This record gives sequence, structure tokens and C-alpha cells, in this order.
Amino acid sequence: MRAVIMDAPGKITIGHRDDPRIIEPTDAVLRLVATCICGSDLWPYRGVEPADHTPMGHEYVGIVEEVGSDVTTVKPGDFVVGSFVISCGTCEICAAGYPSKCVNGEFVSVTVGTQAEKARIPFADGTLVATPGLPDEDLIPSLLAASDVLGTGWFAADAAQAGPGKTVAVVGDGAVGLMGVLAAKQMGAERIIAMSRHPERQKLALEYGATDIVTERGEAGAAKIKELTGGLGAHSVIEAVGTEESLRQAIHSTRPGGHIGFVGVAHGGVSIPADELFFAEVHLHGGPAPVRRYLPELIQLIWDRTINPGKVFDLTLPLDRAAEGYQAMDERTATKVLLTL
Amino acid sequence: MRAVIMDAPGKITIGHRDDPRIIEPTDAVLRLVATCICGSDLWPYRGVEPADHTPMGHEYVGIVEEVGSDVTTVKPGDFVVGSFVISCGTCEICAAGYPSKCVNGEFVSVTVGTQAEKARIPFADGTLVATPGLPDEDLIPSLLAASDVLGTGWFAADAAQAGPGKTVAVVGDGAVGLMGVLAAKQMGAERIIAMSRHPERQKLALEYGATDIVTERGEAGAAKIKELTGGLGAHSVIEAVGTEESLRQAIHSTRPGGHIGFVGVAHGGVSIPADELFFAEVHLHGGPAPVRRYLPELIQLIWDRTINPGKVFDLTLPLDRAAEGYQAMDERTATKVLLTL
Repeated sequence: MRAVIMDAPGKITIGHRDDPRIIEPTDAVLRLVATCICGSDLWPYRGVEPADHTPMGHEYVGIVEEVGSDVTTVKPGDFVVGSFVISCGTCEICAAGYPSKCVNGEFVSVTVGTQAEKARIPFADGTLVATPGLPDEDLIPSLLAASDVLGTGWFAADAAQAGPGKTVAVVGDGAVGLMGVLAAKQMGAERIIAMSRHPERQKLALEYGATDIVTERGEAGAAKIKELTGGLGAHSVIEAVGTEESLRQAIHSTRPGGHIGFVGVAHGGVSIPADELFFAEVHLHGGPAPVRRYLPELIQLIWDRTINPGKVFDLTLPLDRAAEGYQAMDERTATKVLLTL
Repeated sequence: MRAVIMDAPGKITIGHRDDPRIIEPTDAVLRLVATCICGSDLWPYRGVEPADHTPMGHEYVGIVEEVGSDVTTVKPGDFVVGSFVISCGTCEICAAGYPSKCVNGEFVSVTVGTQAEKARIPFADGTLVATPGLPDEDLIPSLLAASDVLGTGWFAADAAQAGPGKTVAVVGDGAVGLMGVLAAKQMGAERIIAMSRHPERQKLALEYGATDIVTERGEAGAAKIKELTGGLGAHSVIEAVGTEESLRQAIHSTRPGGHIGFVGVAHGGVSIPADELFFAEVHLHGGPAPVRRYLPELIQLIWDRTINPGKVFDLTLPLDRAAEGYQAMDERTATKVLLTL
């Protein structure tokens, strides 16, 4: 099958990989319908993480082609959305709502690679959720978004305890930050402050429910949030960048007792000053989003056309032109790129 | 009045300070009955923080001598326990349960200094809680403990969501860690693992409800906690030290989705590796404990002799011998020193 391969940092090709097949009785094989490029794919692209003929991709929707003998919740012909983390669905950590840290878990990016025509998904019952039927074409971007970027923004808003009466500040205007805005709105937040200096992203943030835009960053950004919140800081802050500056911006934007949902992937070397965190007296929770926990609800909201996260894709290309998609995201001319099959 | 003064790091004297008097209508003046030396008092003692003829002390119980015209909840003659943070009790942050970050707040250590014969307590209604009557002598150490060390351990256990069915690990065997054990027990935790290599403290931890003792530290300590919890980590971890090693030990001892109550005072330069925190996917919450929130409940538990936190004091000295108390705590020959007046 055809598949996106990162031969080396910055070098994307369309290569050949063997067609996947059922290995374990809990597997499913999918014919992928759409996939996309994630901000985290830019880390190896930019050489921050290694890349050596690496199969890419971890977001996906597709049609089930075949299932192993133990799979009970999806069947051939089903349209499915899957999490970017494989999860068994039955261990104690999955049961507690953290399939992203399943004791039998694997990252799809590491062991599967869904920028391809097909994919073998282990633990299909614990990882995939079928849609109520075959979706209309226009729902496919939104369903694809649920696979990671929407699920991650949703987790961030949930971890930040966005809800009625709350002021939510969102640090980061990438796709995850924008999904955080959408999630906070959906959860009933009273005021949503998007921190962005990019006109197109500001526009989408407002469309998704942001009530205020703050263009300042770092300490100036945090000071602006305090100014907008009677000197106290936001109740809920979504951190969707993962650098030391953005983490400190988030900590200093949050009121004492408030909550930070922390989903920007922090890389080695990024550290949080413990004294600042201590004296801020905030709650901090985050990590790889437990997307599978939210998928049933997210699929229904999309199916009912209550939310339209698919608008976050501002460039659509066929899989064969993936290299252009990587370049556009790297140069920030696209927020998020959908790849069709 | 007589008062403990830290002339310079390591140099404790008994000096003279003016008797306090009512300044604001929300003030109370207390005649102190007991005070104590805190682990945090060792920071300036050891020269980690500055000390220059500094009045000391922030834990206190006493008898109200006089109140300002606006004080309504305590009156002359009442025996009171106060938090180590002055709090107005009425601002939005106090109302949300974080009097330790009151917008009108002050640290008692900075503006009052309770290792003295008397103290002026601003915002008496928001800071002090009267006991049901004059306490029996033997209850005084426990009531004094509620002022900080018990309230802090209690907050840590609460932030760590200790409760029925939970395994709680406690990093740090100082007074706060021991109070964390007591609090976790009181909150109904199923299993409480005290991390200590000090025989006397192990003994008190067991008495307060610890079910297991782990003597390993750092990564070895975290590995031992994982081993004791089916490879998953504890549900709840109390961090009562505040160093990078102890913070990482706490993070690595917690299961995904679990909670860390973080009350060890972290100093400048201590940092948390953001990637380790991210991929651990734990909840982290802490800071200066909102003791005032818990005082009514803690006083009642002590009054009813349900808990006996006062046992954490293993050395009692008259105020005039405070220097010996500092030395004993510095040399770890005492866990916590009570000073009588």
C-alpha cells in the first residue's frame, strides 16, 4: 500500500508498505478514508525528534475491512473513528478513564502510522468507535478531528474545568487551542479568551465561541488576562503549546484554585519552575489526551451537527501530496492539513 | 514583649518588640498560649532565605485580649486557632476556598511573627476560629498543630484526593508528611505508604495510620511504590518536601489519572521536568495550604479527641529557649518543637 514516509527530517516521500492484516484476535484492519498531519508531526520534520524512513500519522477515520475473532463492537463495513493511542479498554487505567495511559497501550504514531491507505488497529474494541451509519461527506473532516485534535482540546477544557460561569483563557492558537475554544463553549463557559496574534486563527476562534482576543504573550499576556478578570486570573486555562514560556504564561494567567488543562506536548529540557507553580496554587492536569473516553460523545455532537470542528482543516490534499502539507504546516500557512485517500 | 528574633542565619535570640495593639477595626490582639518552630523557619536559619533581626513564627494558638469594632466571630477571652496566612474571608478567592491566596492576604511569618508573647492578627474573622471553650491542657499541642502543619498535611491529602479505596503514598517524613498520613487515614484511605528511613518517624507514621513503610528514595522509591501497587502507582501522593528529587519521586509514584498534593515549599531554582509531568498524566495541586478552610472541621476532630496531631511535637521548650529548638530541628534530633509561653 501507499504510505507517507519521513525519510529524514524535512524529507517526506510516498513509499510502499505491506498491506496490514489481522494478527491478534482483537485487531481490526481499516481502509482509511481520511487522515491528517498533526502539529506533533512537525517535531521530527524539524529534526527535534529523530526520523529515519519513519511511517507517519496517528489520526484517522476509515471503514472496517476485517476484524479478529474477539472483536465485538465494530464489524466490516462500519465507519469508525479511532484514538491516537491504542488502548485495551479493560485494564484498571482504561477503566479509570485514562486509555491514553493504558497498560497495554501503544502510540499509533509509533506502531501503526495512519498516513497510509490502510491500518491495522490492535485492541479494536478499546480504541475504535463506530459512527451511527456511513457519514455524509461533509462530516468526515469533523469526525477525523475527533481522532486527536478535537479530543485533545476537549480534554484540555475538561481538565481545566471549563463550564458555566467560568472564564477560560486559551494559550496557543494552533488547531488544539482552537478546539479548546470550541470545547469550552460547548461546556458552557461564560467567557473565552483566545490568545492569538494570527488574524485567520483569531477569526476561527471567534467563530468557535471566543469572546475576547488577547494578542500579548508571556508575562504581558498573563498580565492582560489578570486585567480582564478583575486582577484574579482566569478560572480555567488551556495550555496548548508546551514550551516553558507558554507554561509559565498559563500558570500566571490562572487564579488561585483555578485549573490548567495542559496538553501542549512538552519536550525534554522544558521545565516548570516549582516555586511559581507552588505559589500560584493552581491545579495542573494534562498529558496525552484520553480521546477514547470522549469519542462516543464527540461523534454524537458531530453527527447531530452541534459542533463543526472540521473547519480547523484549512488545507486538503490527496495523500500523494503530503509533502506539500507538511511544508504548509511547518511554514504556518496552514493550521491543519487533511489528507484524502 | 519578649519575642524570638533571628538576628542572622543560625542566630536566634530573645528580643524585645512593642506590644501589639488594635490598628484596624478588623484586628484582634491575642495573648499567645503556644507557638512552634516550622520546617520553613529552617530556610532562613540555614541561610537559604535572608534573615536580619527578623521576628519569627507563624503558628499560634492564644486567648483573645481585644478586638476591633468590626470583629464579630471572636471576642475577648476566646481561645482561638489561626491560620498561618491572614485572610479577609470575603474576597472572591477566599470564597472559592483559597484563603491562603486571599487578595488581601499576608503571611503571618512576614507581617506578624508569632514566636512572641502577643500578636496582632488582622482580619480576625477571616483568619481565626474559636474553640468550643477553653481547651484542656493536653489538647493545646493538637490545636496548635492545626494552625499550619496539620492543616497543610490535610490540604495535601485533600488535594491528592485521599479517600476510601485509595492507596496513598507520602513523600517526606517531616511533620507535614506525618500529618498527611493522619489526614489520609481520617479520610478513609485503604492503604497508606509512608516513605521514611527514620525509625522514630516510621513509628509515628504507623501510629497515625500508615500501613506500609518504604525506605527507598528517588527513582528507587518510586519503583517500590509501583511494585506495591501492581505496577500502576499510587492513586494519591502527598509531596511534603519540595525538592526536585522529591517532586520527581512523587510524579513517578503516581498512577496515570492519579493526584499529587504538593505542599513541600519549593524554592527558587527547583524545577519540574515538564515532559515527565506531561507523560505521567497526573493531577498536581498544591501551594500554601488554605488552612482556614479546614480549621472548623479540624478543631472539632481534635476537640472530640478523634485525632491527636499534637504527638508530632517531640520537644517542648519555653519560648526563652527557642534557640535550642531551632538547633534540634536543624539537626533533625526533633521533628517539631513546641514553644510554651
